[in-house]
Amino acid sequence: MTHSETSDIDVKDLSFINNIKSMAVIGTSKKRNFFFFRNHAENFKGKLYAVNPNIKEIPGFDKNMIYPSLSAIPGEVDFVFISVPPSLILEVMDECVEKGVKLASVFTAEFSDSGTEEGRKLERELLRRAKNKVRLLGPNGLGLYYPKLGIAWRPKFSPKSGDIAFLAQSGGICNLVIYGGNQLGLHFSKVFSFGNGTDLDFVDLLYFLINDPETKVILCYIEGIKKERGVELKKILKQNKKPIAIVRGGQTETGSIAAKTHTATLSGENHIWNAIFTQYNIIELDSIEQLLSFAYLIELYGLFDLKNLAVISSSGGYGVILVDLIEKAGMKVPPFSPDIQKQITQLFHTLGTSSKNPLDVSAQVFNSETFYKIIDSALSDTNIDGMIVDLPSFYFNSDLSFRTRLDKTFEDEMIETLTLGHKHKKPLIPIIKRINCPEDWERLLKKLFEKNVPVFGDPHEFIPLLPKISKYIRNKKN
Amino acid sequence: MTHSETSDIDVKDLSFINNIKSMAVIGTSKKRNFFFFRNHAENFKGKLYAVNPNIKEIPGFDKNMIYPSLSAIPGEVDFVFISVPPSLILEVMDECVEKGVKLASVFTAEFSDSGTEEGRKLERELLRRAKNKVRLLGPNGLGLYYPKLGIAWRPKFSPKSGDIAFLAQSGGICNLVIYGGNQLGLHFSKVFSFGNGTDLDFVDLLYFLINDPETKVILCYIEGIKKERGVELKKILKQNKKPIAIVRGGQTETGSIAAKTHTATLSGENHIWNAIFTQYNIIELDSIEQLLSFAYLIELYGLFDLKNLAVISSSGGYGVILVDLIEKAGMKVPPFSPDIQKQITQLFHTLGTSSKNPLDVSAQVFNSETFYKIIDSALSDTNIDGMIVDLPSFYFNSDLSFRTRLDKTFEDEMIETLTLGHKHKKPLIPIIKRINCPEDWERLLKKLFEKNVPVFGDPHEFIPLLPKISKYIRNKKN
Repeated sequence: MTHSETSDIDVKDLSFINNIKSMAVIGTSKKRNFFFFRNHAENFKGKLYAVNPNIKEIPGFDKNMIYPSLSAIPGEVDFVFISVPPSLILEVMDECVEKGVKLASVFTAEFSDSGTEEGRKLERELLRRAKNKVRLLGPNGLGLYYPKLGIAWRPKFSPKSGDIAFLAQSGGICNLVIYGGNQLGLHFSKVFSFGNGTDLDFVDLLYFLINDPETKVILCYIEGIKKERGVELKKILKQNKKPIAIVRGGQTETGSIAAKTHTATLSGENHIWNAIFTQYNIIELDSIEQLLSFAYLIELYGLFDLKNLAVISSSGGYGVILVDLIEKAGMKVPPFSPDIQKQITQLFHTLGTSSKNPLDVSAQVFNSETFYKIIDSALSDTNIDGMIVDLPSFYFNSDLSFRTRLDKTFEDEMIETLTLGHKHKKPLIPIIKRINCPEDWERLLKKLFEKNVPVFGDPHEFIPLLPKISKYIRNKKN
Repeated sequence: MTHSETSDIDVKDLSFINNIKSMAVIGTSKKRNFFFFRNHAENFKGKLYAVNPNIKEIPGFDKNMIYPSLSAIPGEVDFVFISVPPSLILEVMDECVEKGVKLASVFTAEFSDSGTEEGRKLERELLRRAKNKVRLLGPNGLGLYYPKLGIAWRPKFSPKSGDIAFLAQSGGICNLVIYGGNQLGLHFSKVFSFGNGTDLDFVDLLYFLINDPETKVILCYIEGIKKERGVELKKILKQNKKPIAIVRGGQTETGSIAAKTHTATLSGENHIWNAIFTQYNIIELDSIEQLLSFAYLIELYGLFDLKNLAVISSSGGYGVILVDLIEKAGMKVPPFSPDIQKQITQLFHTLGTSSKNPLDVSAQVFNSETFYKIIDSALSDTNIDGMIVDLPSFYFNSDLSFRTRLDKTFEDEMIETLTLGHKHKKPLIPIIKRINCPEDWERLLKKLFEKNVPVFGDPHEFIPLLPKISKYIRNKKN
């Protein structure tokens, strides 16, 4: 079965991916210090082989992992990662078909991506030689990152699996998303870099992901799809029930020309894409950085509809700036309801602070019990959907604070308070500057992540995202 | 002379500030571990005293630095930092007048900031008792950071002085700007936190800064000024020749109400402010984060007019996203001129990359000599005003790269290449992600700063600023 039989959608079946048990890195070379072989060896859970007729040993590895050819390997090989020169690619593909390989990542470049007729011809021939028996990722892509099975093309990709999938032509973009996501504590179900997409393309892989039980959220970077795949794309998006967030490259004229240069697909045509994104409730974002911030937020708080926010800052001025940014983005910072306002006012002991929304707590932030109660009250207000809390990072560095106030319980109590969003099932988003004490920031990032609380260093990183998430939820309900 | 006699502008004379030779911290207390005294003791270059009748010793300091009252100090005292309770403030102010103190920072709060009639009355009385002899910063402010003289209200404020000044009511905002600026390698001439501004206000301090020979760039956070000061403000701005960048809090309705709550000045009235900003060529920014990025950029490249940018990325997809962000912000990524294009094309050896603008260099980034020549050529194009270079941080971590390619000269050669902006007198701005290897990022930040090259982690941090800087330059020329 090479095409899906369960629907009228013309896509290739990839369900075997979740059962890959063996793999070979073909063309691993000493020149690159066996880079791709070593990377997969970090965590691959099945049988791993290196294939290269010129290699007899790889320092640190058993000799019986090395074979001169695919056919020489005694057992089955489900998946191969190919990095041979273009001149050898057809021969290797014949071997893959012969061996019964199910999936091949072709890292080798200089096919249609070279922009030459020769390259395009070689790509067509590669596809023909795969005989619809071997499914191809690439050429000119990095293929598959699948942490559950330990498939990973780069060093130190996280071995933990999560439920976020990412899909892009470009391997470079995938590297940023994987390393960047891991840094935030995010883990992936699968990441696909499909390069020129000569066999498996955006549409096939998206179909796989919307049906993949290991994937809950789908992130994509795309520049365009082949025109003839538009019908399938719409059918798939119609079936889809998962949130999909997309960064689309090539929205401006120059961007669109650049996209054509390097991927040889049709892009541009903003009105078509905008119509698709609206009709199928796709979340469109501006940059890879926003995509990561989006994944980070919903990983920890799920999807949410934020109309009315409470703001708490330790500096009145910073609170005012936050209100301006929030209201310019289309959300509100409304007054608390009278009962809640009464409760909060009673908690404020310091003159010159403000017990109204935005709350300016000033040094009261150091009174952990009061600070907890203020946030607890504010979040219990039915007028309020969520909260932003501004805390300077130097509050968490004992060298930079009033020492007698900052005993060692301050940080842990503050972290406990910052989890109150979960009690009220409303997002509470702290902003802690990345300044002056980077090591404190890293520690807080980790501690808060363990409590399922995100943290940002700059309001521009997440405020523009909030209305997009809300819009998704509202459209989904309608 | 308490008012300026050199012009018809009604502002207070502050020229004595640059000659402060002695200071006292009045009300330093054991409870806060002598916080403000210790902080000033870190670097103050003149004679420093602690004044508190209840304190006999401060661990680590000479006993003859401690006095029961200001009058008990044998020598002169030019500047005082006051943190006594409000009930003692008038008595202390009488002593200051008696002693001939020139400037007092009043940290004590609960004056007009408390929102009570009692507080407003006390503030008026404080001003009256200063008799126009002692100039006041505050109350409810942190006063003066002046690194050249070692005046600093917080621990580990940089002891180095620079030519950037910052002006805000809020001490909390000043802390963020100072610590955040220092982190980026920026240093200040003076920072003023003027709190309620009952004596010295925004207008007085701005006038001082536009005439201060130690200040080249003026950054401000303001929420509003007293209506009767509008005429003076305009006169000052008319005289001004320095770049002024302002974040104005209270632009939205809720933001404006919040600003009134905590500073008791008139804000809002966007049309008046917008007219002033346009007429006097003020650079208006959205957030404290943008203010810091602005200062960082112009500290290293000066002011510039960027219409046409070259883009270089190691991933084609990331380059396309950058082009979209740049063109949406109103700048262009144009083709190179034919001669330059010819030069650059000859330098590209890898198929599947793009030698057009945006340049997609892929692994050619590892060939230091070629990469240098590509950037050198691109910047020599008279069509091009500046360049953005995208480099993943993991390129600078030997554990995450092809080891044989990444010898120890790679990083130093890359840094050399990234200084090419200075050779061509055009800004070259690298984006290096803050992901996966934070320690590499910190090292690069420092090494690049030493070469006068800024570095960002996210394009949203600086792309929106570029057209604002360009607009300033164009308006200045007209």
